[in-house]
Amino acid sequence: MSSLLIHNIGVLATPEGVEARRGEAQGKLRVLEKAWIYTENGEIISYGTGNPPVTFGEKLDAGGRLVTPGLVDAHTHLIFGGWRQNELAMKIRNVPYLDILAAGGGILSTVKATHAATEDELTAKASAALDEMLVFGTTTCEAKSGYGLCPDEELKQLRVIRRLNKEHPMDVAATFMGAHALPPAYKENREGYLRLLCEEMIPAVAKEQLASFCDVFCETGVFTAEESRRILECGREYGLIPKIHADEIDPIGGSQLAGEIGAISAEHLIVCPEDGIDSMARGGTIACLLPATSFYLNSTYAPARRMIEKGVPVALASDYNPGSCPCLNLQLVMNIACLKYRLTPEEVLTGVTLNAAAAIGMADKVGSIDRAKQADLVIWDAPDLNYLCYRLGSNLVHTVIKKGEIKHG
Amino acid sequence: MSSLLIHNIGVLATPEGVEARRGEAQGKLRVLEKAWIYTENGEIISYGTGNPPVTFGEKLDAGGRLVTPGLVDAHTHLIFGGWRQNELAMKIRNVPYLDILAAGGGILSTVKATHAATEDELTAKASAALDEMLVFGTTTCEAKSGYGLCPDEELKQLRVIRRLNKEHPMDVAATFMGAHALPPAYKENREGYLRLLCEEMIPAVAKEQLASFCDVFCETGVFTAEESRRILECGREYGLIPKIHADEIDPIGGSQLAGEIGAISAEHLIVCPEDGIDSMARGGTIACLLPATSFYLNSTYAPARRMIEKGVPVALASDYNPGSCPCLNLQLVMNIACLKYRLTPEEVLTGVTLNAAAAIGMADKVGSIDRAKQADLVIWDAPDLNYLCYRLGSNLVHTVIKKGEIKHG
Repeated sequence: MSSLLIHNIGVLATPEGVEARRGEAQGKLRVLEKAWIYTENGEIISYGTGNPPVTFGEKLDAGGRLVTPGLVDAHTHLIFGGWRQNELAMKIRNVPYLDILAAGGGILSTVKATHAATEDELTAKASAALDEMLVFGTTTCEAKSGYGLCPDEELKQLRVIRRLNKEHPMDVAATFMGAHALPPAYKENREGYLRLLCEEMIPAVAKEQLASFCDVFCETGVFTAEESRRILECGREYGLIPKIHADEIDPIGGSQLAGEIGAISAEHLIVCPEDGIDSMARGGTIACLLPATSFYLNSTYAPARRMIEKGVPVALASDYNPGSCPCLNLQLVMNIACLKYRLTPEEVLTGVTLNAAAAIGMADKVGSIDRAKQADLVIWDAPDLNYLCYRLGSNLVHTVIKKGEIKHG
Repeated sequence: MSSLLIHNIGVLATPEGVEARRGEAQGKLRVLEKAWIYTENGEIISYGTGNPPVTFGEKLDAGGRLVTPGLVDAHTHLIFGGWRQNELAMKIRNVPYLDILAAGGGILSTVKATHAATEDELTAKASAALDEMLVFGTTTCEAKSGYGLCPDEELKQLRVIRRLNKEHPMDVAATFMGAHALPPAYKENREGYLRLLCEEMIPAVAKEQLASFCDVFCETGVFTAEESRRILECGREYGLIPKIHADEIDPIGGSQLAGEIGAISAEHLIVCPEDGIDSMARGGTIACLLPATSFYLNSTYAPARRMIEKGVPVALASDYNPGSCPCLNLQLVMNIACLKYRLTPEEVLTGVTLNAAAAIGMADKVGSIDRAKQADLVIWDAPDLNYLCYRLGSNLVHTVIKKGEIKHG
């Protein structure tokens, strides 16, 4: 048996429980001062204030610092080949998007680079990104396929995720997103790609048990709300829980659909209308917001405050991908959520821990400091939660603990 | 004699020369592929492409990475006591600024905390910040007084800067900014504070040779343009080169004044009018822009492109301070400048190297990879400059070299 006692915690701050926190509850934390946490075999056994219990295993002095749950990044496109740094330079020079596409840019360039990479190469690259996420305090993340867009390549991406779960300390929730774009070969044959998704890819993903979720990009020029419904309902028949990229650019019904079909989460939601928020509230859908993407694309910001007011739980994620958000640092996401969404530090912490865990179906295991949850914890070089959200551009991680083991610091 | 040969540089990118680059020249870099740099006794002796020279000192393999000059942060309020994390939380909750002031917040709370700190304490705190700046690639910075607002305390801040120059590898340019705010005791006696500045503080700063520059906050509710002129002209009589915080909130004539008196730089310039830009262009004033502050305050962004078009050299700096920008990471400043000012990566690199060096009168020593300049260099975990500006939220520093010595990496 391995055990770890973390003592001399200045402030312990965590949401509570095993379900997403909505409305006012999103901003309500359990905050303990002068606290300790005791873990055994990677699990939280007890915590409290005052004198810690007498234990015989490893001890870690938190030095009076802030301790929170490990951060959870509920939305990433972790598995990809190549980078697209020249597109940023072109965008700054006002090169039109169609010219960028013509120059070989855009999502299809990432599809090409991902096809060209071997499973080993993709694993090594994603593993390095997971290492860096850990250094910034993320202990659990989600990863999507979606740069394959054909059966073999989508499965390749998902197999990389399975391998990362075995080889890397990070827990990685897998999402099948063959419906990330319509491949050019199907431009005049949408029905053909929908059938490929529903009749080949989804059954194959399910058969190999390669994913827990099915996601679709519901957007003008990509998939309509009705097509999205069809894909997600097919996924559900095969046991894949629905997620949906909705209302990123145009509000074409994605958030309404998310609530109607009871999607576990809807993503982006930058231009989410009131009836979309209402639908998500009714359906119990978590809003998975991606503030760094709005920042990177110079778009507006999702109506996060309105969602909280209406009882939709808000999760916050990085959207790490090589096009619209080459950022895997959840601390920066927390800053942007405070400054641009006007969420409080307490709401933000819930958004990157418990609500994010709930958005990937893992709130029973991670996302809060509760007995019997995994001992995924971060000790921050910060005296309190306000400081963590206030300082910008520094990595405030002091120590990262995953399943009771020190992984960084 | 100590020497260092950096070889196997994938891309060497630097502005050229010993003067600020303006207009089109700001975006023109010297870019060498497969390059090397040879330094002796902390100075750049030679550089080139192809086979490096045969040398007998230390060798460093850059691994095919990008190398640039060390970054220069031309505007910081490095020396301060305390932090103000609770103000951010209050602002998010829409607490009015006057209530924040009443709750003991705002600049005067930093003045209080700075008064309360000893010289040793301020030195230790600033030294830790300099350590972190180095880790992010900054090798030279500026630091202002301005949280003293009385003779003894202003001198205390400046003595801390002098000590940091002796004790820390970073070069720190010193700016006297007793005119950072009007102390409450002088609210009904502006003339009294102006006389204190001009008759006591500036002469004392000059006598002890504690600063190279004199800065003033020209803003509604702080100092008028005429008061600013008087302070800066007095400073110049004592050998202090003028700088000015201008057009941050209201355009009350600061940028026009900057050009008229030939200030070396004007700072912020968020709402800088056309005739202010024209005046700076005529006066040879460098625009020292602070994009992270606009981001942090949710304000608009300075008209950086317009300044470049009109021939004003643009420098980019962090504005590191405990109120409006608790950020010392120039890589994030570079990202924001690309994304929000729409400056190209080449213009941005010039803004955080040569033009920043020129804004603090050090372009003869640092800010570019030129023969006889200090060997202040950064090896980046990046294949090219576009990548450095494109990736967000990661620290891409691989190795930091200050005066020919490896300080980080």
